[in-house]
Amino acid sequence: VVGPTPLGPGAEFDLIRRFVARFPAVAAGVLVGPGDDCAILEGGLAISTDMSVEDVHFRRAWLAPREIGWRAAASALSDLAAVAASPIAALVSLGAPESDAGAYSVEVMEGVAAAVTAAGAVLVGGDLVRSPAALVLDVVVLGRAEPPVLRSGARPGDELWVTGRLGAAGAAVRDWSEGRTPAAEARAAFARPVPRIAEARWLADRAPVSAMLDLSDGIGSDAGHLAAASRVAIELLAASIPVHPAAADRGADEALRLALDGGEDSELCFTAPAGTVGPLQASFRERFGLPLTRVGGVRDGRGLTLLREGRASPLRASGFRHFHEGAW
Amino acid sequence: VVGPTPLGPGAEFDLIRRFVARFPAVAAGVLVGPGDDCAILEGGLAISTDMSVEDVHFRRAWLAPREIGWRAAASALSDLAAVAASPIAALVSLGAPESDAGAYSVEVMEGVAAAVTAAGAVLVGGDLVRSPAALVLDVVVLGRAEPPVLRSGARPGDELWVTGRLGAAGAAVRDWSEGRTPAAEARAAFARPVPRIAEARWLADRAPVSAMLDLSDGIGSDAGHLAAASRVAIELLAASIPVHPAAADRGADEALRLALDGGEDSELCFTAPAGTVGPLQASFRERFGLPLTRVGGVRDGRGLTLLREGRASPLRASGFRHFHEGAW
Repeated sequence: VVGPTPLGPGAEFDLIRRFVARFPAVAAGVLVGPGDDCAILEGGLAISTDMSVEDVHFRRAWLAPREIGWRAAASALSDLAAVAASPIAALVSLGAPESDAGAYSVEVMEGVAAAVTAAGAVLVGGDLVRSPAALVLDVVVLGRAEPPVLRSGARPGDELWVTGRLGAAGAAVRDWSEGRTPAAEARAAFARPVPRIAEARWLADRAPVSAMLDLSDGIGSDAGHLAAASRVAIELLAASIPVHPAAADRGADEALRLALDGGEDSELCFTAPAGTVGPLQASFRERFGLPLTRVGGVRDGRGLTLLREGRASPLRASGFRHFHEGAW
Repeated sequence: VVGPTPLGPGAEFDLIRRFVARFPAVAAGVLVGPGDDCAILEGGLAISTDMSVEDVHFRRAWLAPREIGWRAAASALSDLAAVAASPIAALVSLGAPESDAGAYSVEVMEGVAAAVTAAGAVLVGGDLVRSPAALVLDVVVLGRAEPPVLRSGARPGDELWVTGRLGAAGAAVRDWSEGRTPAAEARAAFARPVPRIAEARWLADRAPVSAMLDLSDGIGSDAGHLAAASRVAIELLAASIPVHPAAADRGADEALRLALDGGEDSELCFTAPAGTVGPLQASFRERFGLPLTRVGGVRDGRGLTLLREGRASPLRASGFRHFHEGAW
């Protein structure tokens, strides 16, 4: 039985911290409670829930209804990937304005079901309610994690790795927000993210992965969450971060900003003892068509530091774009 | 492995029906899929999710923030009671306007946690997001049901029973909607419903309960859902329905309307073979301080019929006050 995972830095966590602090740290039947990507119950059952709200997490003008559903489900499923769980089942609660209760809502739910099915899980139920104005989706996912990979296991000397390339989804949001049409690859990264479920299982089966999470907020925040949960310091090497080509159209500074803080990437960030992941890089790329990149290391201490052109700067959790928002 | 439970009558189910029809009826690891109060996974794990939206399911002017949270969680927990499951864990997703992100949201979540704790479960996580205007809560509950009591097991010759008294919560909603202050008991029934978890377990342990659900929509709709799921006809005896005194302030017709269609009651409606529940009435009342009332019977056929003063009238699922709304 593990107590609550320490939450990352930043005032944006104050509300959650205040609330979680009132609860007992330990309960029968609960292996991991609030603070990680999933709660883990006895028997290795992983469960997570992820809410998406229109005009906060997406805009209808940006996405087709099937994409809205896919994206909401993929965000939840990515939390299962983050603990290396195999998806079993999902439920979806959909709040929709009365005018969207027909074909539009069915298409949203088809998108949810497509993402759930693609992840090897089954949509087993949900709730359908009226919402006065905004579309709201809450997707609950269950999986089996034996054993789960938590945020809290990083140790000094470990290396920090990421899957795939970062910043493309953030570039799409930036372009839309500026009234421009994003490049196709950037749009796809936001509209049809693929949770790295098989990748996480593959890695956990082959390497002593010590800690992991998914990069929903951007590595510039999430690596800090991992450091806080593991009670270690993490150094991030700016030059090593694998920036997605679709995020690189405005020069290196903007590309780095998107990769660090653009968020919405469904890639995994994890730690493992030095030398244990490097030998897997080629076969990972062959198997999944994705790069596996070492982007930093774990040290004694606390906090997240960015090393860039010989300068070290502390990073705060700026990736959370909405007040105290976040899973807990 | 059981296929999807047939949904109740009424156009309000069309959207759900259309969506569910596209899914395979049976999946590995899923004992009961969409259509019952909970999905049931292999091993007897029951799971359900319930979304509450401001100005649809409640108004802030009606309830304190702790009551909003309690009510949302109690609605979800009542779905566990409906399958006679013992609660294990809950998660809550809260969407809140930025101006409510502080103390108000913490109080809402305290209400959620209080209901979860009172039901013997643990709040293990959730999500906290910004919502443009309305408060939105989605509460996910997990429990163990060994074996679950489903909606689909009613057989001709069974008796139909309800716990407690009906109509009080509906009276509160009616009064608020008319700009009046509800009586204290009516208000409490809406603001602080108590899921009948121990009652359901007690009954399932002592009687061969054949089918059960909770009366979130009102017995005038929900008994029809039970009849549809069990592929039987149900006759409801108007004179036997235990109307709550707080619903009886405007005469017998209005009291019956509230008891049938007022909804929001967290009582249980169940069937059992003739003669098996009557002997338990006295000890049930002694144990729980609630009446246990026989309100009708199960026959061959289809549909729900109300017998009142010698007249039989078919009841349609009018309890769903919002377009296609409902758990599935």
